Amino acid sequence: MPVYKAPLRDQQFVLHEVLQAVEHVRQMPPFRDLDADTVNQVLEEGGRFCSQVLQPLNLSGDEQGCRFDAATHEVRTPDGFRAAFDQLREGGWQGLTADAEYGGQALPHVLQIAFDEMRCAANQAWTMYSGLTQGAYECLRAFGAEPQKAIFLPKLVSAEWTGTMCLTEAHCGTDLGLLRTRAEPQPDGSYRITGQKIFISAGEHDLAENIVHLVLARLPDAPAGTKGISLFAVPKFLPQGEGAQARVGARNALYCGGIEHKMGIHANSTCQIVFEGATGWLVGEPNRGLNAMFVMMNGARLAVGVQGLGLTEAAYQNAAAYAKERLQGRSLAPGAKSDRAADPIIVHPDVRRALLTARAWAEGGRAFSLWLALMLDQQHHHPDASEREFAADMMALMTPVAKAFLTDNAFDGVSQCLQVFGGHGYIHESGMEQLLRDARINMIYEGTNSIQALDLLGRKVLMDAGAKLRSFGKLVQQFITEQGSSLEMNEFVTPLADLGDKVQKLTMEIGMKAMSNAEEAGAAAVSYLRVIGHLVFAYFWARMARAALDRVGAAGADPFYRAKLATARFYFQRLLPETAYHIRAARSGAKNLMELEAELF
Amino acid sequence: MPVYKAPLRDQQFVLHEVLQAVEHVRQMPPFRDLDADTVNQVLEEGGRFCSQVLQPLNLSGDEQGCRFDAATHEVRTPDGFRAAFDQLREGGWQGLTADAEYGGQALPHVLQIAFDEMRCAANQAWTMYSGLTQGAYECLRAFGAEPQKAIFLPKLVSAEWTGTMCLTEAHCGTDLGLLRTRAEPQPDGSYRITGQKIFISAGEHDLAENIVHLVLARLPDAPAGTKGISLFAVPKFLPQGEGAQARVGARNALYCGGIEHKMGIHANSTCQIVFEGATGWLVGEPNRGLNAMFVMMNGARLAVGVQGLGLTEAAYQNAAAYAKERLQGRSLAPGAKSDRAADPIIVHPDVRRALLTARAWAEGGRAFSLWLALMLDQQHHHPDASEREFAADMMALMTPVAKAFLTDNAFDGVSQCLQVFGGHGYIHESGMEQLLRDARINMIYEGTNSIQALDLLGRKVLMDAGAKLRSFGKLVQQFITEQGSSLEMNEFVTPLADLGDKVQKLTMEIGMKAMSNAEEAGAAAVSYLRVIGHLVFAYFWARMARAALDRVGAAGADPFYRAKLATARFYFQRLLPETAYHIRAARSGAKNLMELEAELF
Repeated sequence: MPVYKAPLRDQQFVLHEVLQAVEHVRQMPPFRDLDADTVNQVLEEGGRFCSQVLQPLNLSGDEQGCRFDAATHEVRTPDGFRAAFDQLREGGWQGLTADAEYGGQALPHVLQIAFDEMRCAANQAWTMYSGLTQGAYECLRAFGAEPQKAIFLPKLVSAEWTGTMCLTEAHCGTDLGLLRTRAEPQPDGSYRITGQKIFISAGEHDLAENIVHLVLARLPDAPAGTKGISLFAVPKFLPQGEGAQARVGARNALYCGGIEHKMGIHANSTCQIVFEGATGWLVGEPNRGLNAMFVMMNGARLAVGVQGLGLTEAAYQNAAAYAKERLQGRSLAPGAKSDRAADPIIVHPDVRRALLTARAWAEGGRAFSLWLALMLDQQHHHPDASEREFAADMMALMTPVAKAFLTDNAFDGVSQCLQVFGGHGYIHESGMEQLLRDARINMIYEGTNSIQALDLLGRKVLMDAGAKLRSFGKLVQQFITEQGSSLEMNEFVTPLADLGDKVQKLTMEIGMKAMSNAEEAGAAAVSYLRVIGHLVFAYFWARMARAALDRVGAAGADPFYRAKLATARFYFQRLLPETAYHIRAARSGAKNLMELEAELF
Repeated sequence: MPVYKAPLRDQQFVLHEVLQAVEHVRQMPPFRDLDADTVNQVLEEGGRFCSQVLQPLNLSGDEQGCRFDAATHEVRTPDGFRAAFDQLREGGWQGLTADAEYGGQALPHVLQIAFDEMRCAANQAWTMYSGLTQGAYECLRAFGAEPQKAIFLPKLVSAEWTGTMCLTEAHCGTDLGLLRTRAEPQPDGSYRITGQKIFISAGEHDLAENIVHLVLARLPDAPAGTKGISLFAVPKFLPQGEGAQARVGARNALYCGGIEHKMGIHANSTCQIVFEGATGWLVGEPNRGLNAMFVMMNGARLAVGVQGLGLTEAAYQNAAAYAKERLQGRSLAPGAKSDRAADPIIVHPDVRRALLTARAWAEGGRAFSLWLALMLDQQHHHPDASEREFAADMMALMTPVAKAFLTDNAFDGVSQCLQVFGGHGYIHESGMEQLLRDARINMIYEGTNSIQALDLLGRKVLMDAGAKLRSFGKLVQQFITEQGSSLEMNEFVTPLADLGDKVQKLTMEIGMKAMSNAEEAGAAAVSYLRVIGHLVFAYFWARMARAALDRVGAAGADPFYRAKLATARFYFQRLLPETAYHIRAARSGAKNLMELEAELF
């Protein structure tokens, strides 16, 4: 049976010893009184909830899956899911970062991301019910009219009601400009929504008394394409009463038409939702719905990256435990002796390579995502406008990297950890094959990783002529300068600086080519994102190495720092060289992709 | 619904235009009368069986899976499997390469491998029932005593009976030296087998009247470790009567204790088999069982590589069809026009990158595996001893490469093709997620890919100081020399020659390091195998490019050759550069894996 232990020590290392997160957020008015003890306590308690409540439901949830009742259009979630959701409500976890006025705890996002990592590691399918609710909260908070906010936000913060995002239709996913769901204005200011949506995660379930769908649809006079899409709040049950006193009233004219049979995340209902003139309310301005949805989407993209991180950590922990316990083969180390017929497989170099790959992906991803969460806090709350702007730039630049790089790494890392189990990893009971199946969706939803790569290279880098990327480059340069000629940092700083130079040249080269042919950007994008992901990881691994070096020599130093340094070395020597491949692939140009006629595929 | 079309044109290209396979096998006495028409007819008919009979059962087989009846210990295969197996028997497909004296068709292995690719593409789970039977035939044919051969071989060739290989026990897989199943000699010359085996593919089913288990077990006086393992034939029903007239008699004392719940290949029963003093017969010499089993295993390893190839092709075909049909987004090509709201997604560079990746893996793998099958024929049947020896060397050297490289590529290629479908690829009905789940086992069974890498680097390369590798290198060098200073081949020959040089240096470097520490080989092995795999692919892609260049310019030339050249260019520019990464990783040494104490994982 798979297990999961909250990685508190490593989270604390990143937060307190690398990022100085508490000092950082205390510069922001809402968090002036936050202290490290509170942060640690929240994470400890959150970790306990994840490992003791959510993780034990993960394997059974996958086995049972969601059950759809075609007669009632209702979905039953697996045993234990509802009780766990009650605990989420009781613990106030849903409102961790929400505003106090809506019942939230108003803590910084950096804590949310740390918590998200743990709950996704423990049970991604369950976590999605809550995660989408949080996204709906963010979106309505930013764009909802006051009466909408007064009704919906307290319910979403308490998790009495949950949320969804309804974008995809059968004929359109990536290309939302094609969508057909209609919204007709009614005399009372509401709208009637008609259409069919698919792939609606958490679209129907038995965890909460109401579900607020955020639905993209077209007004009657809307222009074609993406500029004619509006956003509507369409609850399963119409609210009765005003503000926070609202209760569920009449059933709205929408229902779940079925759930999908998927590769993984079996315990999360992926629904077809049929709107048959359902009552909804416009959120934000007419025809500006994609804009509003992207607020939800951007948060979701970071969250999906963190799902990947969580799965990587979970897979690593299980494979490491197995490798220390499973006896098979003998060590080949010079002079290795053993009075046993076999050694634990962790003596084998290639088993270690697999484990360290997952570990380096996880620990690098943790530093990156917690830093990015700090940027999210800084973007919203820093008193200094230029700091807010810098943080907003980093969020814009790095969200696609976090989404795609962390989820690609997760699929690789989980697969390598499965391999450590040999045939046992392919068997359901080990839990490893579930992690791999679950990990596969993260590369797809909230914009495929290919779309993330196009977003990064096209919109975030080339569109501002590399300005945001240079801002990040300055951080890197500053760190390198600070290391001076430190001999012990040389093995980390030299490849980091080298990659920084290469990224500059590569960006310039692709930018030049893309000016005459936009396909050049599309042809380079996926490899380019891998290269940028490594620049980010190399930077954070170097910072972690620095923090570890500062402490590893002290008398009685925690062996944790030795492990951190070893993993940093592994990252630089074994994973970073992937850039040598992707720089070549990115530079190879569009012709090798485009020359073949479509009919010849 | 997924589809599959036999890749006959491409198989014929490789067989007739690249490898001159028919001329080649006609040098061997048993195949003197073979002609290209016969080859083409067999493949056409075989292809029809695969695409019309096997493929339509693939998705439903996955859904239904195998059902175990705990009361009777019987396993029911999915609907339609038995009827398809009857067609296998009727068509004589099981005996394609088997000796005529046992009822086989005595055709060369190169045809078998071409057929195997197609049936694995169509239905891997179904194919395994037949594939293991063929392995059991090969093993008994090579090591069985005459009376055993007379009874078992005709039944295996006709597929009236099927076969299994029973190696793994709960506590030992890779490390068979630990196995505990016992064999006690009986006065009548038989043995009583007692023990429990797990992960027995096709261990129990309803497709045939009898199942011949080839079981590894220890004699009472056997030395410890791998040198005390013997092989036994242990049928589910004891044969009654002699020779080919034998019929099934009494039930033997063995039963299926349960089947595994696995990530994929749901339609193949993965059984626990309990032997309770079952009657068996020694196959080959006492304590030399691993030797005999490795005959079966080596064939199985090539077959597993070909399973990967088949899945890659199937995934490619489905993703290419989807990409030409699915409308989403607009072409970014300069001057692209369209009167449609959206273009088929095949206009997007990154969709093409994903498709071409799978295609280049498939077509390269096809050339490689068919060449290797020719080597298998040559090893057994060439009149010239030095040709037999050369072929045996190539088989030894390249079997682990075929097994690991083709299955790693398959997991990558299938995953990329799934991604082309976006969210639809994650849904069962698309068939893509099944292909990915099925593809994952191929990296594990018949020796994990990590074991293949150790076998390649340790046993096949370093142990003979690179002699076999140099033999392959001579082939490469000869081809390069033949190209002279051909300008049109330059783009293929230059990187091939460059990689050849790098492989030499890398091998030397690792060899030197491994002399002082065997862990250095283990630390480099997986990356080393990727590099060798690319050397092989670069060689065959260059040969295919040559064959295509010879024909592409002719009036009315088949556009097939243009597509082949475009795919060759894609391979060299986009996939081969992976070697830049793996050479660095392989050279980075063992220290970055071994320095961390086991407790700190």
